[in-house]
Amino acid sequence: MPTPRNLENRRVVLAARPVGIPQAAHFALEAVSVPEPADGQVLVRNRYLSVDPAMRGWVNVAANYAPPVPVGEVMRSFAAGEVIASASRLFKAGDLVTGMFGWQQYAVVDAQTARAIPHDDLPLSAALGVLGLNGVTAYWGLLGVGQPRPGDTVVVSTAAGAVGSAVGQIARLKGCRTVGIAGGADKVRQCREIFGFDAAIDYKAGDLAAALDAACPRGVDVYFDNTSGPISDAVLSRLAVRARVVICGTASIASWEPWPSGPRIERHLLVKRARAEGFLLFDWMDRYDEAVQALAAWVRDGQLRYQEHVLKGLASAPDAIAMLYRGENQGKLLIEIE
Amino acid sequence: MPTPRNLENRRVVLAARPVGIPQAAHFALEAVSVPEPADGQVLVRNRYLSVDPAMRGWVNVAANYAPPVPVGEVMRSFAAGEVIASASRLFKAGDLVTGMFGWQQYAVVDAQTARAIPHDDLPLSAALGVLGLNGVTAYWGLLGVGQPRPGDTVVVSTAAGAVGSAVGQIARLKGCRTVGIAGGADKVRQCREIFGFDAAIDYKAGDLAAALDAACPRGVDVYFDNTSGPISDAVLSRLAVRARVVICGTASIASWEPWPSGPRIERHLLVKRARAEGFLLFDWMDRYDEAVQALAAWVRDGQLRYQEHVLKGLASAPDAIAMLYRGENQGKLLIEIE
Repeated sequence: MPTPRNLENRRVVLAARPVGIPQAAHFALEAVSVPEPADGQVLVRNRYLSVDPAMRGWVNVAANYAPPVPVGEVMRSFAAGEVIASASRLFKAGDLVTGMFGWQQYAVVDAQTARAIPHDDLPLSAALGVLGLNGVTAYWGLLGVGQPRPGDTVVVSTAAGAVGSAVGQIARLKGCRTVGIAGGADKVRQCREIFGFDAAIDYKAGDLAAALDAACPRGVDVYFDNTSGPISDAVLSRLAVRARVVICGTASIASWEPWPSGPRIERHLLVKRARAEGFLLFDWMDRYDEAVQALAAWVRDGQLRYQEHVLKGLASAPDAIAMLYRGENQGKLLIEIE
Repeated sequence: MPTPRNLENRRVVLAARPVGIPQAAHFALEAVSVPEPADGQVLVRNRYLSVDPAMRGWVNVAANYAPPVPVGEVMRSFAAGEVIASASRLFKAGDLVTGMFGWQQYAVVDAQTARAIPHDDLPLSAALGVLGLNGVTAYWGLLGVGQPRPGDTVVVSTAAGAVGSAVGQIARLKGCRTVGIAGGADKVRQCREIFGFDAAIDYKAGDLAAALDAACPRGVDVYFDNTSGPISDAVLSRLAVRARVVICGTASIASWEPWPSGPRIERHLLVKRARAEGFLLFDWMDRYDEAVQALAAWVRDGQLRYQEHVLKGLASAPDAIAMLYRGENQGKLLIEIE
């Protein structure tokens, strides 16, 4: 199937390499023409672009999971959209897909790197959040690494966020007592009223240690750590025997250059015979569909709720990562494009 | 069986509560009479007393695994000796036993708390080291928590010590490449020549980072951590993907009051999807005999070597824990009493 003629592709490229959190000035908008998909490729028209904390690591120069995005290239990101031309037997025009399509209107990608969206009864945008990266991270990070048991006290940081809110709800569905930590009265209210946390703590409101003591009288069995920093320091000093710590993100650390210090955690792990383990979704890709299926069922019957914060238009992308780290979004941050 | 009459029990009691590492002045020697064993008890004549890093934690006031030794009471310790009077069907006079008999010549204990020594062809003292606490800690800490695979690079701190030397040899027996870290040329030589480490690093000799890079070109798959502190910081920044860190001791931390800081480890665990887990032997007591059997077989056929540093007489006990933390012992530190 040929590409529609004369398509212009507006896209956001990395204009300069940031240290720490990328700001609007590190990106630039440009327009190029759309190539035809070669054999085995598909042309995708993006409808939603994802904004994720991990994108900081994708543009920094420090060694990470993958080589950093080169300066001048389109910003790497998850996206969801529609196949509009296919040179692959895997997809046909009209199929809804998600994948690493980048911050742009149109993407030409190898068909094997695209993933069909199996839940067309649910909103397309959910494929980037609760039924995508964030939901699957919550699902396997909590159930695969955190291994909660009924009755456990499960503490989550960034609890009103896309990952944290799903972690809390999944833990509750598994019979745990859930404690969310978030910043500000609004997010704490969401934790309680929308996401059903048994307790929610505003870390900006004052004595986090005392609030944790009150919310976790028997200590913390599972800590799902999205922040590192002083929030985690307070939680880690309250672990229960045989606690599990899922290290999923370090949102509170603005920069790892110079490398930050904090209270040593070895003694907590030793005395409590606790386990801390890093989680990366890419290690669980072979069980991705299993998680999406479970998550979609919970969304359908109203047991798993989610929030989206949708920015309109590609021009809102350059500031979006910084916005995320400023904590200004309410729920999964997305960019909707025309 | 009655107690031999008029037995005097010389013993070492805790005279003052230390902060940090207990010194000679925190202990006192005294003599009391030996009571008769009540029903279900045995009277043990100690031959060897154990000196272990964990004993620091047994006298400090901070919350730990068990209540601290009360001031004025006999110092808690492992010991090995002979039953000389029994009011229990479990043991008879002449049986060799090990248990928490304390720093004293004679102990009257509940027979259930004593453990028969199943290897009377091997030296009695070994029941406190390579065939006791230290060997079983190395065995289950490494194999149960560290889970090494053939070809893995296994790094051990305090590698010439009672636990570290056993960890290195067990790892080598399991097909791993072993790297020992120890302090001083003598201990490094022992690591290579006695304990067969593939590489041994003197952390006092200079550039630990460069030495680790040279010894671990593919990173560290298993780190058996007996030290915490700057040695561990250097190792933790060199973890391989899916590395396992066994947190077994914190020998390099002189005091946890005030709580020491160090480089944050969350990012290492996250980027490498590594796991750090505390190990405490008491959680593995149901598999103690299994380890002793395997260790004794290796000792008999010469595949597992050990060193002992034997102090003579009860009067050498008060300074012994401090001596351990000064790193002056060569191998398992024991006190032999008459």
